[in-house]
Amino acid sequence: MVGFLSNQWYAAATAQELGEKPLGRRICNEPIAMFRRRDGSVAAVTDRCPHRKVPLSIGCVVGDDIQCAYHGFQFNGSGACTLIPSQKDVPTGAFDIRSFPAVEKYALIFVWMGDPGRADPALLPDFHENDSPGWSAAHGYLRVAANYQLLIDNLLDLTHLPFVHKTSLAGPGIVENPIRVEVAGDIVRARRDMPNVDPAPIHRVLRHFPGKIDRYQDFEFRPPVYIHLNLGANPAGSDEDRSIPHHVVMNSLTPETETSTHYFWSIAQCVNPDPAVMQKLYEMNKMAFDEDTGILEAQQAAIDADPHGPPLGAVAGDHAGVLARRILTRKLAEEAAGTP
Amino acid sequence: MVGFLSNQWYAAATAQELGEKPLGRRICNEPIAMFRRRDGSVAAVTDRCPHRKVPLSIGCVVGDDIQCAYHGFQFNGSGACTLIPSQKDVPTGAFDIRSFPAVEKYALIFVWMGDPGRADPALLPDFHENDSPGWSAAHGYLRVAANYQLLIDNLLDLTHLPFVHKTSLAGPGIVENPIRVEVAGDIVRARRDMPNVDPAPIHRVLRHFPGKIDRYQDFEFRPPVYIHLNLGANPAGSDEDRSIPHHVVMNSLTPETETSTHYFWSIAQCVNPDPAVMQKLYEMNKMAFDEDTGILEAQQAAIDADPHGPPLGAVAGDHAGVLARRILTRKLAEEAAGTP
Amino acid sequence: MVGFLSNQWYAAATAQELGEKPLGRRICNEPIAMFRRRDGSVAAVTDRCPHRKVPLSIGCVVGDDIQCAYHGFQFNGSGACTLIPSQKDVPTGAFDIRSFPAVEKYALIFVWMGDPGRADPALLPDFHENDSPGWSAAHGYLRVAANYQLLIDNLLDLTHLPFVHKTSLAGPGIVENPIRVEVAGDIVRARRDMPNVDPAPIHRVLRHFPGKIDRYQDFEFRPPVYIHLNLGANPAGSDEDRSIPHHVVMNSLTPETETSTHYFWSIAQCVNPDPAVMQKLYEMNKMAFDEDTGILEAQQAAIDADPHGPPLGAVAGDHAGVLARRILTRKLAEEAAGTP
Repeated sequence: MVGFLSNQWYAAATAQELGEKPLGRRICNEPIAMFRRRDGSVAAVTDRCPHRKVPLSIGCVVGDDIQCAYHGFQFNGSGACTLIPSQKDVPTGAFDIRSFPAVEKYALIFVWMGDPGRADPALLPDFHENDSPGWSAAHGYLRVAANYQLLIDNLLDLTHLPFVHKTSLAGPGIVENPIRVEVAGDIVRARRDMPNVDPAPIHRVLRHFPGKIDRYQDFEFRPPVYIHLNLGANPAGSDEDRSIPHHVVMNSLTPETETSTHYFWSIAQCVNPDPAVMQKLYEMNKMAFDEDTGILEAQQAAIDADPHGPPLGAVAGDHAGVLARRILTRKLAEEAAGTP
Repeated sequence: MVGFLSNQWYAAATAQELGEKPLGRRICNEPIAMFRRRDGSVAAVTDRCPHRKVPLSIGCVVGDDIQCAYHGFQFNGSGACTLIPSQKDVPTGAFDIRSFPAVEKYALIFVWMGDPGRADPALLPDFHENDSPGWSAAHGYLRVAANYQLLIDNLLDLTHLPFVHKTSLAGPGIVENPIRVEVAGDIVRARRDMPNVDPAPIHRVLRHFPGKIDRYQDFEFRPPVYIHLNLGANPAGSDEDRSIPHHVVMNSLTPETETSTHYFWSIAQCVNPDPAVMQKLYEMNKMAFDEDTGILEAQQAAIDADPHGPPLGAVAGDHAGVLARRILTRKLAEEAAGTP
Repeated sequence: MVGFLSNQWYAAATAQELGEKPLGRRICNEPIAMFRRRDGSVAAVTDRCPHRKVPLSIGCVVGDDIQCAYHGFQFNGSGACTLIPSQKDVPTGAFDIRSFPAVEKYALIFVWMGDPGRADPALLPDFHENDSPGWSAAHGYLRVAANYQLLIDNLLDLTHLPFVHKTSLAGPGIVENPIRVEVAGDIVRARRDMPNVDPAPIHRVLRHFPGKIDRYQDFEFRPPVYIHLNLGANPAGSDEDRSIPHHVVMNSLTPETETSTHYFWSIAQCVNPDPAVMQKLYEMNKMAFDEDTGILEAQQAAIDADPHGPPLGAVAGDHAGVLARRILTRKLAEEAAGTP
C-alpha cells in the first residue's frame, strides 16, 4: 500500500507537547508547524517559510502569529503573511502559506491533511477515555522507523504478545483462542475471548485476582490510523458486566513518511486510582511498545532489503489486519479517483 | 544555481591549519591534498593515489613529496610520481596526478581550481586586515551542510541579525534602514547606515560608547565566494573619519559539494589591542556563526525535502544577494560557453 | 568485478561465535540466520520469516528449530515451517524457507551459497592449523566497509607492510625483494624471500634471534575468498627446514555486500606455547588489521566518490593480486554462463 489518505484527521501531537513554542512535525510527508494562539487554540501551517524555506517551527510565537527564526517574517494561523521586517508592505497573498484545520481533543492535537472544507469532526476517533472523569490516563510518543501499516498490523494481531512481550502482556490463551472479526462500513471490530486463564503480569498490576481470569480483547480500527483496544480481565466465571470498558489502550499511528511513523499511545483505566498503579502500568506499556519498535524497525529494514521479494504472508492471526488493509486500499483508490 | 566557477581561487585552509602533515579537503567536489614543501611553500594535488585510489592526505610528507599511506608511492608538488617502492622504475607520466596552483596569502591558503595557466593573483580577495600591522585578527572554520550560495545570501542580507543573533550582533536600526547597493563589474558593494541607534552588544565589547551611535555596514562581494564586511560604529553625530575601516569580518564560503560549504571566517579590528577584547570578540562571532549554521543547515534540509517546490523568495532585504547571484549565474554561463 | 561466486563455501562465523542463540549475517547480499541444533550441528536458513519478514536471527532456538521473535513461527534446519501458533495447521510448503548447507570445520562455520547438490567439502580451504595438535591459534573478526576484492589485493601485496604496519609487521627487505608467482588451476601461489634482514617486531615476539634473519612469505589464494599466509623467519644462513610452516595467518574475506566484507582472520603458530606470546601476537595482528581497515575503508570511499575515474592501477607489487582477480573474473563468467 502506497500513499496516505488525505481527507482525514491525523494525531500530530499530544496536547501537553504543544506549549509556548511552536512544534514541527512531518505528517504524511508534509512538514507541519503547530502553535498556540493567545487563547490557547491550535493552529497548523506549512513548516516552511516561503521566503528562504527555513522551518517556521524553529522560530517562536509572537501574539497570534508564528515568527520565522531567520528574517522575522510572521504568519497567522490562517497562513497569511502579516509582517516582512525588511520592507514596509506585505504584498497581498504572495507570501501566504497553507494552513491546516487543527483541533485539540481527548488530550491530542489532530490536523486535517486534505480539503479544509471537508474537515469533519465526526471523523475524529473516540478516545474519550483519555480525559473523562473517573479515568486515569498516561501518554507516550515513539517515532518508529516503519510504515504505519506495519503498526496497524501489529496492534490488530495480538498473537505476538506471548513472543514479544514475555514479561508484561503475554499470557496463556492468546494464540489458542480465535479472533472473531466484523466489518461495519469503514470500521473493523474484533474480539478474542480467553476464558479461564492465568492473569498476565499487567492484570496483576491493575487488580488482585485470587485465581484464573476470563480475559478478553476488543479491537476497533477506524481509518486512517486509529486503534482502540479494550482489554478486559474478570475473575473466571464471574458475571461482571463486560459492556463497560475499564482498561483501554488508544493508538494513533500517524505516518511521518512512507517508512516512519509517529506513534501516539495512551493507556487509560478506571479500576484503580492509585498513581503508583498508573506509573507501573505506564512503565509496563512503555517497555512493551519499545519491544514492538525493535521488531517493527527490523521488519521495515528487512522489507527495504528485499524489494523484489514476495508480499507479506497472512495466517489466521492476521484476519483483522487484512480487513483493515482492504479498507485503506479501497479508500486510497477512492481518493485517487476523486470519489468522496 | 548549479555548479561552481572553475577559474577562481578558493580558500582551502587557514595557513595555521597546514603544518607538517598533509591536509585533505574536498573543494568544489574535487578531493584536494595540500602539503608544505621544506621551504614552507604550499602544494596542492588531487587527493587520490592513482595506484589504489587511497587519499594521499592520510599519508605523510617526505622531503618535498607527499607519500601515500598504503604502498609508499611519492608525488611532488607538481603531481609527478617520483617513487614506486615495489619496482625500480617509475613509468614516465603513467602515475602522475593533477596539481593545482596554490598560494598562501592573508593567513589563508588559496587553491586555483581551473586552468593553471590562468591562475591570476589579482583575483585573490583583499583580506589584508588579516595580517596587517596594527590589526588584531582571529580566525574560525566551520563546515556547514548547506550550499555556498545560501551562505552568501546570509551575509549579504543582515536583516537576519535581530532574529538570529539576539545577544551579540542584533541591534535597532537594521531592518528599519534600507540597504543601498551598487554593482561595479563583478563586484557588488552595499551600504546600510543606521544613524543614532543604541549600540549592539558587540560594539560595547570593542569600545566604550556613552550614548547612541551611528552604525553602518559596508559590504563587498566578489566572486566566487568572498564577502568583506566593514562594520562601523561612531558616537552618534560625531565627525569621526569613516573612510578607514576599523572592524571588519572577512568571509570565504568555499563549496565542498553542492550541499556543503567550508566557511572560513576572520574578524579583524584596529581599535583595541587588548587580547581579552579579541578573545571576547572571537567568542561572540563564533556563537553568531554557529547560530547561522543552525539556520542554514535547516534551510538546506528544507530545500532538499521540497524538490518540486517554488524557488526561494526575495524581498527588499535580499537586494544585494540577488545581484550577487546574478553575477555568479552570468559567470557560470560564460565558463560553460568557454568565454573568459 | 561485480557480483559474487555462488557455488562456493563462505566463512560465515567463527565456531565460538555461534552458541545457544541464533546469529544473523548478510553473506553475498543474502541474509542468513545460523543456529545450532541440540546435537551441536549447524543449520543456516534465510534470515527472514516468510510471514512478516522479521529477521529470524533476532528470535531464539527451540529444540532443533529456530523461532521467529514476532509471532513464534518455527522452522527446522531444512527450512521447513513446523509451527504457526495462531492456527492449527501448517500449510504444506507455503511458509518454507531456503536452507543452506553449513559445516563447522577448522574452528569456522562455512555456508554454501549456491546449489545445495553441489556443496563439495573438497572446496573448503585447508585451514587445519586453526585446530591442530601442537598449534596455538587466535581468531579475530572485523567488518570492513570495503569490497572483498580490495581485501584480497591487500593481502596478496604485502609491500604495504612497511608503510601501514610500521610498528608490527614492517621490516627491511619487503619492497626490495621480488615476489615470484605461479598459478595452478584456480590457485595462486606466491613467495617472497628476504635473505639476511633485521627481524620485524613480530618476529621478536615469537622467538629470540641474536642477529639477522632469512625472512620469507608464502601466499596461497584460493577462490572465492581464502588466503593462507605462511610467514617464515630463520636465523640468517641457517639450514632450518622451511618445508613445514610454523607461523601462519589464515584469512577469509567473505562479502557482506558489494562494499562491505566480513573479515575472519586467525593466526596460528607452533613455535612457542606460552599463552603470553600468543596474546602479544594477537594484539599485534589486531592492531595491524585495524590499520588495514582504516586504509581499506578510505580506499572504498574514494572509489565510490570517483565513479567515472580510471580503474585501479597495478605495479610490480600487484602481480599476485592481478592473477587472483583474473581467476575470479573467469569463474564469475563461467557461473553466469552456467558452466560448472
